[in-house]
Amino acid sequence: MEKSEKLSILDDLIKLKTVNGNEEIVANYLKELFDKHDIKTELVKNSENRMNLIASINNGADKVLGFTGHEDVVAPVNEDEWNYGPFNPKHIDGKIFGRGTSDMKSGLAGLAITLIELNEDKDFKGNIQFIATVGEEIGEIGAKQLSAAGYADHLNALIVGEPSNTSSKPVMDKLTHSGLIQIPSPNPTEYGRHAFFCAHKGSIDYKIKSRGKAAHSSMPEAGINALDNLITFYNKQKEYFATLTAYSDDVLGKTSPSVTIMNSGDQENTIPDFAEMNVKIRTIPEYNNDKLIDDLKEIIAKLNESPRMSLEFEEKSSNWPVKTDMTSDFLKIAHQSYEETFEQGALSVGAPGGTDASQFIKANPDIDVIVAGPGNESAHQVNEFVFEDDYLQYIEIYKKIANKYFE
Amino acid sequence: MEKSEKLSILDDLIKLKTVNGNEEIVANYLKELFDKHDIKTELVKNSENRMNLIASINNGADKVLGFTGHEDVVAPVNEDEWNYGPFNPKHIDGKIFGRGTSDMKSGLAGLAITLIELNEDKDFKGNIQFIATVGEEIGEIGAKQLSAAGYADHLNALIVGEPSNTSSKPVMDKLTHSGLIQIPSPNPTEYGRHAFFCAHKGSIDYKIKSRGKAAHSSMPEAGINALDNLITFYNKQKEYFATLTAYSDDVLGKTSPSVTIMNSGDQENTIPDFAEMNVKIRTIPEYNNDKLIDDLKEIIAKLNESPRMSLEFEEKSSNWPVKTDMTSDFLKIAHQSYEETFEQGALSVGAPGGTDASQFIKANPDIDVIVAGPGNESAHQVNEFVFEDDYLQYIEIYKKIANKYFE
Repeated sequence: MEKSEKLSILDDLIKLKTVNGNEEIVANYLKELFDKHDIKTELVKNSENRMNLIASINNGADKVLGFTGHEDVVAPVNEDEWNYGPFNPKHIDGKIFGRGTSDMKSGLAGLAITLIELNEDKDFKGNIQFIATVGEEIGEIGAKQLSAAGYADHLNALIVGEPSNTSSKPVMDKLTHSGLIQIPSPNPTEYGRHAFFCAHKGSIDYKIKSRGKAAHSSMPEAGINALDNLITFYNKQKEYFATLTAYSDDVLGKTSPSVTIMNSGDQENTIPDFAEMNVKIRTIPEYNNDKLIDDLKEIIAKLNESPRMSLEFEEKSSNWPVKTDMTSDFLKIAHQSYEETFEQGALSVGAPGGTDASQFIKANPDIDVIVAGPGNESAHQVNEFVFEDDYLQYIEIYKKIANKYFE
Repeated sequence: MEKSEKLSILDDLIKLKTVNGNEEIVANYLKELFDKHDIKTELVKNSENRMNLIASINNGADKVLGFTGHEDVVAPVNEDEWNYGPFNPKHIDGKIFGRGTSDMKSGLAGLAITLIELNEDKDFKGNIQFIATVGEEIGEIGAKQLSAAGYADHLNALIVGEPSNTSSKPVMDKLTHSGLIQIPSPNPTEYGRHAFFCAHKGSIDYKIKSRGKAAHSSMPEAGINALDNLITFYNKQKEYFATLTAYSDDVLGKTSPSVTIMNSGDQENTIPDFAEMNVKIRTIPEYNNDKLIDDLKEIIAKLNESPRMSLEFEEKSSNWPVKTDMTSDFLKIAHQSYEETFEQGALSVGAPGGTDASQFIKANPDIDVIVAGPGNESAHQVNEFVFEDDYLQYIEIYKKIANKYFE
């Protein structure tokens, strides 16, 4: 494909406003593009105006490589502060500006174009499944839906095109030195500003609700203090979390729980009849989400045996940890492809944030996953951008990985 | 004084709107009334439109009996639901309706009229100090101001004219049986619907603020969780409160602490940098407010030795417990006066709520206090009322107590 067409596909996608919804305009755009290139597609509706897209090429290989990206973007926040507006792509000094340039319409466009070029390559022998999802930014809902419907079951490896680079080497150094990127390598200085992730923690978000009985504070024994009961649970939970430090992952570290919100009571003179707290746990493969949730429910069931306790566990989300063996062939292939493209080593690190891969891995734990995309840390910011070169070079990296994977 | 004049004084006071402020209109009304009867007065300004009033008669006795009541009333809340309006006194079937009829313009008027009648009684040999306060309902601010200025220092006994009866015997039985009134006597059935309080708990209201450092929940170790730190304090405080059960009062029972509010965090993904809780402790004379506050501050100082802890104690109010010896002469006199007036025994019980006496007792712990006034449990309610008979009879009780006290 011509460079100019590659750039105009990305521009087209940036113009499509898919802020936390409305993703069918991206799905339809890509379907039309794939139709033109004789690639089989399937639209999978999520809800009103929200459409996932699957596109596949099948050369009869014995394994399947997945390409995945999400169609939604986060809100532009302060529209006034965008130099060119969030949905008005501008190419300035080698950068393309606009909401989603980094996260992740560049990755999505790059993977789509790779699919088209691989399909046209008569020497390519592999099977690729391209998956464009809705609602990654809020709940990974498209990936969740597709995983439940079996779309991840036959995948052997997966490239998630989320932003994995930084905009400059000093920024990368800062991120690594501050601990914001966890590095397995002791010496990051030999690497450039390009990286990919071989792992990220999962997460569990939940709420604990405690119900009691109101009373005037002069007669506390006439009531049941829901807050006191919630803190009784908090203390049990803290003891339990301490036991989890026994489990550790070489790249991701340990399970990391945080109680982030607690609210109870609104009158100084009244025993509160309700209390709730939010907890976020970052999880590792060594102690998986379902085991954790079962343990927490057991603690609650035990406390609820007391007639004065009424605690409720409400799961808000459960995103599984993603971890690819550092010594796997897929990771070796990824390293080689980066080295050939950038003539420099690329870090493979554990990322703090999550991706749709959490959902696919939950359905099929055997997928080797890398998160690799042209975007950078300008994601979610005002004046988000991607380097034009990165965008174009990632298409080369994706093709290299795919070709090597099916060699 | 004629009955009609007694009733019209109460009506006049009810018409004066002194909802949490504006008390100078009551102070000025009473000053004018006392002036007319040659009783010496002193206006003590609290703040804009807020005026305390002191009125005294001095017959050279060696002790002083105080009469006290507050000039403010609570808000009428739902004005529509008042049958005759909150500030429009109506006499219907032996009841007088209006905001403050029970709490406590009937008590205030009754004590003022008692003062006038005692002043006219050539046989009366006692010294009385009448104290009308501002802002009892919110913070007991007038009593606090007057106590600090020394107005309680020379008092030997004090009648607080707050509502101390119920509207019916069944209601009294219900209140006692539900534990809402704590009774020293094992058998309340021999008593009528009239009662007075010889004791009530004090209270301490305070806030604990915890300050930390925000961070993304994927990197909790980059922040300081203010909520976790607050709960560390909560747990220490709970251990401390458990030690207070060693102290007990025969009428008031034990120190009774309640954590009534806790708030922290507003984003699930962010380590909270602030957390706060409100605590209300009902106190007893056996472990006084200042000792408690010192203990709490010491716990905080110790925790704050950790560089990651930043806890702050904020006192919101400290009202002292009030307790008069059940075997004191003043209580015997009160019992006799009730029996002579109602031809039935009166309960003397510990009340759950507080009064201005908390402030006077803090300044002068030697005052014998009773809370005795014509009002009932309709205080603070819509269609608040007082029985006309109760209002008039309490003037007789007050006179009897004063005469017996100086016999």
